Formats: sequence, C-alpha cells, structure tokens
Amino acid sequence: MRCHTCAAPANVEIRRSRIAFCARCYPTWFRSRVQERIDHDRMFRREDRVLVAVSGGKDSLALWHALTRLGYRADGVYIRLGIGGYSRRSQEKCERFAEQHGLTLHQVDLEENEGFVVPDLRDARSGKPCAACGTVKRYHFNRVAADLGYEVVATGHNLDDEAATLFGNLVHWNVDYLGRQGPVLESTHPGLVRKVKPLYRLGERETAAYAIIERIDYILEECPMARGAKSLAYKAMLNSLEEQQPGTKYGFLVGFLKQGRAALPGAGADRAAGLRSCVRCGQPTTAEVCAYCRLAERGRRKRARSGSAAPDRLSRSGRAGPGPGAGRDAPHPGPDGGGGPRPAVVEPPARPSPSG
Amino acid sequence: MRCHTCAAPANVEIRRSRIAFCARCYPTWFRSRVQERIDHDRMFRREDRVLVAVSGGKDSLALWHALTRLGYRADGVYIRLGIGGYSRRSQEKCERFAEQHGLTLHQVDLEENEGFVVPDLRDARSGKPCAACGTVKRYHFNRVAADLGYEVVATGHNLDDEAATLFGNLVHWNVDYLGRQGPVLESTHPGLVRKVKPLYRLGERETAAYAIIERIDYILEECPMARGAKSLAYKAMLNSLEEQQPGTKYGFLVGFLKQGRAALPGAGADRAAGLRSCVRCGQPTTAEVCAYCRLAERGRRKRARSGSAAPDRLSRSGRAGPGPGAGRDAPHPGPDGGGGPRPAVVEPPARPSPSG
Repeated sequence: MRCHTCAAPANVEIRRSRIAFCARCYPTWFRSRVQERIDHDRMFRREDRVLVAVSGGKDSLALWHALTRLGYRADGVYIRLGIGGYSRRSQEKCERFAEQHGLTLHQVDLEENEGFVVPDLRDARSGKPCAACGTVKRYHFNRVAADLGYEVVATGHNLDDEAATLFGNLVHWNVDYLGRQGPVLESTHPGLVRKVKPLYRLGERETAAYAIIERIDYILEECPMARGAKSLAYKAMLNSLEEQQPGTKYGFLVGFLKQGRAALPGAGADRAAGLRSCVRCGQPTTAEVCAYCRLAERGRRKRARSGSAAPDRLSRSGRAGPGPGAGRDAPHPGPDGGGGPRPAVVEPPARPSPSG
Repeated sequence: MRCHTCAAPANVEIRRSRIAFCARCYPTWFRSRVQERIDHDRMFRREDRVLVAVSGGKDSLALWHALTRLGYRADGVYIRLGIGGYSRRSQEKCERFAEQHGLTLHQVDLEENEGFVVPDLRDARSGKPCAACGTVKRYHFNRVAADLGYEVVATGHNLDDEAATLFGNLVHWNVDYLGRQGPVLESTHPGLVRKVKPLYRLGERETAAYAIIERIDYILEECPMARGAKSLAYKAMLNSLEEQQPGTKYGFLVGFLKQGRAALPGAGADRAAGLRSCVRCGQPTTAEVCAYCRLAERGRRKRARSGSAAPDRLSRSGRAGPGPGAGRDAPHPGPDGGGGPRPAVVEPPARPSPSG
C-alpha cells in the first residue's frame, strides 16, 4: 500500500478505512483526527486549560503529545497508585516525558497523602482492585482539575477501551453506566469538571503507532493488578471479530453513540439530581459519604491491619484548609464549612511553557 | 455432583445455576422450565393450537417433543428449502419424528410450490442466503399458521441463538431489530400470527441433553450454507466468555429483555403502523410488494437463468384462491379482492391425536 498523503510506501495501515500512511505523514493524520474530534464533539476550546490524566502508557502520553503539538495548553496529572515496581516505572515515564517536552506534571501520592495504596483495595470476591482503582483515579483527576482551575480533564481512552467498556456494560446491562458512556461527560455541578476522550475513535494500534513514530517512551507492561481482568477478555473477543470484519469495533461504538445511547436515560452527563457535598471531603456525591471516602477508609483500615505505614493521612485528617495545590475555592463546601481535607498535589518546581 | 431432584449421581450440569440432574430427572426439569416460560411470558394457553416450526435439528424437535409431553396441541411445519442432501436428511428426521409420535407435520416445498430454492437466494456480497432464508421461513411459518388457524407459531430458538442474535444486533446497532427481539412477538394484524420462543432461556447444551436423553433422532450437521456465518462467530465468542463467567449469556439476554429493551422503540411487537396487503400474495407488508415476494421473484429469475426447472410456480401465478391447506379466510385481503396465490401445504394423510 501507498501513503494516502504522499504516495510513498506506507508504514501504518488503517484497515477499517482502507487507507495507509508513511511514518512521516502518519502523525499529522493522527493529530488531525484528534483535532476533528475535539471540534466536532465540542470537547474544549483553544483558550481552555486542559488537564491530561497520564498513566505512563502509550495512549495518555500520545494524547498529551498530540494536544501539545496542536497548540493546546495541556498539563498532566499522574496518580501514584503504589502498585510496586509498575507504578515506579510508569511514574518515571511520565516525569521524563514532562521534562523532555517542558510540560507541567501534577502528581498525587496515594500512600503519602491518603494513607493507602491501590493493592489495599482488592475486592474480596474478584481479588482485583480495578473497579476501586477507577473510582480513585476519577476522584483525584476531578479534584485536581477543580482545585487548580482546569476547564476539562482529558483521558487517553481509545476505541478499544471504549468498545470493551461498552461491551462489558451491555453484557451486564448496566443501563445507568451505558447512559453516561460517551466521549464527553458534561459537568452538571461546579465541583465536577467535564471529562473528554479525544482518542475515542482511534484504535489501540493507531495510538501505539503514533507513540512509536513520535518516539514517545512509554511503559509497555500492563498493570499487574489487571491480569485476567474481564476488560481484557472483552478486548480479545472484539479483536477476533475485528480480524474477521474490519471496522466492527468502530461501528459498534459509534453506532451505540449515534443510535443506542439516545434511548437511554441520562445520556452524556454526570448525575446531577440529588448531588450534595460529602461530609468528609466536600466533593459532590449522592450519598452522605462519597464512594471515594468509603474506599479510602477501607484502604486505610486494610493498611493498618497489615502493619504498613500510613503516616500522612492520619496526621492530616483534622486539617480543614485546601491542600498546597489548590488553585481556586473548594468546590461546594459542605455544612461543616471546610470542605474537608484534600489530597496534596505534588507540584513540579516551576511551570515552563509548553513546547508547542 | 448429585442430582438436584433425587440425589443420584448427576449426568447433566447446569453451570450457571450450579445445579445438576441425573438422566432420569433431567427431562422433567427441562419441561418444567419450558412450562414456566410459557406461563410466565403468557406465550399461549392450554386450549391454543400451536404450530411448531421444525428444522430437523435438536432445538425444534426438543421443543415439539416437550410441548407434546406437556399436553399441548402442537403440530409441526417443515419448509423444504432445497439445500441438497442437508435438506433431504433434515426432512427425513422431521417426518420420522412426527410418525413415531403420531403427530401432524405440514410441509411447504419451495421448489415445487414457489419455483426456487434457498441456494438461489445467495447474497451477491456475502455469498450467503442466510438472511433471505430467514425471511422465507418466517413468511411460510406465518402463512401456514394463519391459513390453518393456529393461534401461535413456536420456534426452537435457544439461549445461544438469542444471545448471538442480540450480540449481532448490538454490534451493528440495529435499533429496529433490537426493539422487536424477544420471546414473544405479539400479533399486530389479523394476518400476523404471534410468535413465541419457549426455549429462549435454555442453552444449546441443555436442549441437546434433552434430545439425547429423550432419544430424539435429530440432524447433527449444521446447514452447509451457514458455514462462516457471523452468528457462528458470535456464538463462539459468547461461549468463550461463558467459560470464564458461567451465566454470562443468560445475564446478557435476560438483562437486555428486562432493562435494555424497554428503552427501545416498538418493543415486543411486529410493526403495526402502515401495514397493507402485498399486491402479489396478500400478506401484510409495509411495501407494495412484500419482502418475500421480491425475494421469491429474484430466486425464480436466478433459477430460470441457471436453467433449473421451476415448473410449478409459473403455472400457479395467476391463481387467486387459497391453497389446499387454507383453514380460515385469507388474512386481510387486498383491494384486488383475492389475497393472491398462496403456497401449497403438503398435508399429512391423517391427523392423529398427540401422543401425550
């Protein structure tokens, strides 16, 4: 095949579209796809400050790279989850990427600031902390963005991720989740920052190709906690279908967004009804104590029982003021007047301007 | 494992329910499941005459057998599709089953009565006639039932079939089909007989076990035209998930019926709006000429070009009266007053009472 742009021999094939690109033209095409989605789905505007949630993997770093190259003001946030060597290596990848490109990376350290790590959140039945880890990450991404005044949180979810999530939600008919699955999750509360997924129509192979061609140094290993996760089984199934019918994943996801989702309740928005402030942390929640605070409590108890150190959180729990990284007023403070303690944000020493 | 009923060593395990049965108790459990679905989903009543669509395979013969044993007045209908040796062998299985159990089997012979066979309906793109074959079968099942005064058509679709169909409709987001997928398709027109699927919560392995234990002689081979069909790929995928998480197929289908389908338009009914009579055959349709008549026309043309004999239909095309099997007035006759020609029904010599 020949490059769709310059007719040179092609290096990357986009099977579902029956086009291909050489390594020189591919990144431009990839970024044009990202730009097209940002514009078409009204994810954010030129002047918005974007917080990119990075994990050290190819997708989130490719997204951060592409947004920066497209001229957006995009900073990163990394959560130190405390998953042993995997977490250390992925943290290094994020720090190195930020340093190389002169970008700002915020960090939240669960162990130091919250008194637990993700392995403390293992589910009793499945033995996996994946669902809890998702809650923890979403909580901190949102909180850091709200505290530091970002207009939007961007995550690196790609087509494969989204199709697998959709499939999982369909297999279990989580109608509530289905209604909220989409590339843009609008804010329905001042404390909930809107979330966007600019890569949601680009496949895993396509973000990998972008990362490789742009020489992004990312972590190749999968999270060791996710081994045997259902989402990986769903991905494998969808990949086998994709082999037989290129375009299946794309049609499945985009068909859902265009046809299926409209029929479901609460499409495309965080729940707005009945939101109040968590009595512990002040974040918006539908319960008295938010899901994150309940998880964190469980994690700290687990950690205390297992005899590991949980030094910081316990000494911080009485503190009412905003953490060192808070850039604007606490969102929706509760009746206790303080909004509760907030996770520390480890700030980089200085904030250089994006490399363009 | 031990039999759930009598504690003897078990022969058949129902993994998703974590129960098992010995070969002696299993058929009773199987039929109780069928009865429970008939009652719970109000499929038909004791006094209704049921037409079972049989193919010679395990599911439809198991259904016919179970309904008869449960005391229902259930006759069979078999469509001679003209798929070479496969069709001949499956016809033999149906005829032998009817004979052994003293049951009435109606037959429609496509080649003789309609002037084409299913292989004439191969799709130009996929090379497969499966979609067209489905239309042909549904048409004749409905027509025979309407003509002969049956209250309901019962098909042998099992959990695996239904889950695979659901999956296929979700992958392509056929919202219209999704809304109408269910165990009961109500009649919305006098010419459309209600359709039910009493086995829809029983897995393929469970109907196979029933057929084997009850010594039902069924055709083992898959239809040769279906080789490589997408539905088989979907079944394989769902089976691999089921291996990992027993109950996945059941949860997927039943979750859809309980949660997902309600959100979709036209749930559980044949389209009622804008139905009129096909100008050729008189059957209810939304178009001037119904989908079946267009398919049949295409099949006859194909057959004429290939030089095969299509003796009967051409000489029958001017006939306006009902065929030899018509048991009640033609459904919803069109403005031409006749309702058009109807497919012949090959009647069995006599109608013995069910074996009970």
